[in-house]
Amino acid sequence: MNNKVLVLGSVAYDNIETRYAKENNILGGSASYASLACSYFNPAAMLGVVGKDFNPKDIELLKSRDIDLSALQIDESGDTFFWSGKYLDNFNRRETLEVQLNVFEHFNPILPDSLKASKYVLLANISPALQNSCLEQLENPEFVVLDTMDLWINIAREDLLNVMPKVDLFILNDSESELLTAEENIFIAAEKILEIGAKSVLIKKGEHGSVLFTKDDIFIAPSFPVKELKDPTGAGDSYAGAMLGYLAAKGDTSFETMKKAMYYASATASMTVEDFSCRQLEKLGLEEVENRVARLIKISNL
Amino acid sequence: MNNKVLVLGSVAYDNIETRYAKENNILGGSASYASLACSYFNPAAMLGVVGKDFNPKDIELLKSRDIDLSALQIDESGDTFFWSGKYLDNFNRRETLEVQLNVFEHFNPILPDSLKASKYVLLANISPALQNSCLEQLENPEFVVLDTMDLWINIAREDLLNVMPKVDLFILNDSESELLTAEENIFIAAEKILEIGAKSVLIKKGEHGSVLFTKDDIFIAPSFPVKELKDPTGAGDSYAGAMLGYLAAKGDTSFETMKKAMYYASATASMTVEDFSCRQLEKLGLEEVENRVARLIKISNL
Repeated sequence: MNNKVLVLGSVAYDNIETRYAKENNILGGSASYASLACSYFNPAAMLGVVGKDFNPKDIELLKSRDIDLSALQIDESGDTFFWSGKYLDNFNRRETLEVQLNVFEHFNPILPDSLKASKYVLLANISPALQNSCLEQLENPEFVVLDTMDLWINIAREDLLNVMPKVDLFILNDSESELLTAEENIFIAAEKILEIGAKSVLIKKGEHGSVLFTKDDIFIAPSFPVKELKDPTGAGDSYAGAMLGYLAAKGDTSFETMKKAMYYASATASMTVEDFSCRQLEKLGLEEVENRVARLIKISNL
Repeated sequence: MNNKVLVLGSVAYDNIETRYAKENNILGGSASYASLACSYFNPAAMLGVVGKDFNPKDIELLKSRDIDLSALQIDESGDTFFWSGKYLDNFNRRETLEVQLNVFEHFNPILPDSLKASKYVLLANISPALQNSCLEQLENPEFVVLDTMDLWINIAREDLLNVMPKVDLFILNDSESELLTAEENIFIAAEKILEIGAKSVLIKKGEHGSVLFTKDDIFIAPSFPVKELKDPTGAGDSYAGAMLGYLAAKGDTSFETMKKAMYYASATASMTVEDFSCRQLEKLGLEEVENRVARLIKISNL
């Protein structure tokens, strides 16, 4: 058995512009944020691809957090996936300025034998076809978390609907749940998602918190207050990574433990958005997460 | 001493159109909703005006909840204040179709001697000049709650800024706090409002809950989930009325009691929006409020 959390996702270099600043060629991608966030709680193994331009410093960063890179492919035929985007309207919307798929175009996630028995699996944001391919290589995963984005709901809806019944927890945000179900009330949208088949669903509402749903239960958690949001990129990936990292560390995926995991996930995501790239995840540690969780409980529980 | 909660506000007949239905000439106004909501917890006394058309049935309704109407003026020279509005975009925006001030135009809130010693005072939504006039007639109020709306922030800002330092709790929603402070982050907006002088401020975020701020503390409370929102009119008035009713009933306005009052206020407001006018406040009782509070605690506290 292998208790590392397997994280499938993208690794990218991003150019990002917010009203605070513009930064170029910074480490991004769903697998980067999610693995680093996960690593606060439980070792992670990253399944992804980078190109010949991938900076050895970034390899060092990931290794410094004990992230298993044995399934990270280095494709010398091209450059790392590149995304350039700009946040508009005080972060409510973002515009993609440029995408270069590069080595991502022909990425085929191949799971090394050593990771096939992974119990905890995060299918971070990447095409549902790749998420499904990863799932099919796993022997007997115990708890699978699914993330996605509006792009896949728009262009690969059938593939996504195919993956959903195979997962234990589907994490998405409120605008995505509305796009998927055509229902703006998240309580009704969640019912529809559970009917499609995910065993549980967690709908995030940005600064307004998140709500976890199973067929029998719901739980509303607040978001850790952020006074200075600098770059929202990676907030969702960090949330999912921390959530599953916490569950894996506890070895318990009960509803009660998921409730606590939401607080840890929110605290971790709040750190990510306070700076560009994964810098806050690098800089701050588990102690800061614990402090934020304690504070969040104090200011939101009777 | 008089322990009734004094509620200053408007009494109105409304024509309201939502995507569910259109209803005409239904009882509305900030004082109606707030007094009825308050009456679940503590006796209320209504300070307002109605016209010659005011329906005796509505008087009976208010009396049936033991609402003191000794300060409700009946002005035979005209009709009751009338408002006609339509909710757009799934309730996010509303459009005023018609306003007839009627007897409200020359309303001068005169406090009977029996209510001058009121300890708990709700300055529900009405012009800040009238709120100030009411305050000046009070002998030594212990806890004053202020509500307002975008209209007054736009057309009577100076008057409102003049009232704010005199109150113990200012309740407003997030769009109003942004309009007032030009700051969209509610945590920063609240700091600005506290600087202007309210002793505490509570910012409501509709379905996303509410946040209470003092100079030293904050508390985040969830909203009771509403699956079928029929008419949001009066939600804020009900929230404020229930909040102060709960505090008055406890005879305690400490931060700890305010935290609990937020749950009672949210539960009460969730009832109001499930039907038009004050119907749910008439129909459901304190037992339903208690059930909703218990449920809300269960689904949102670790």
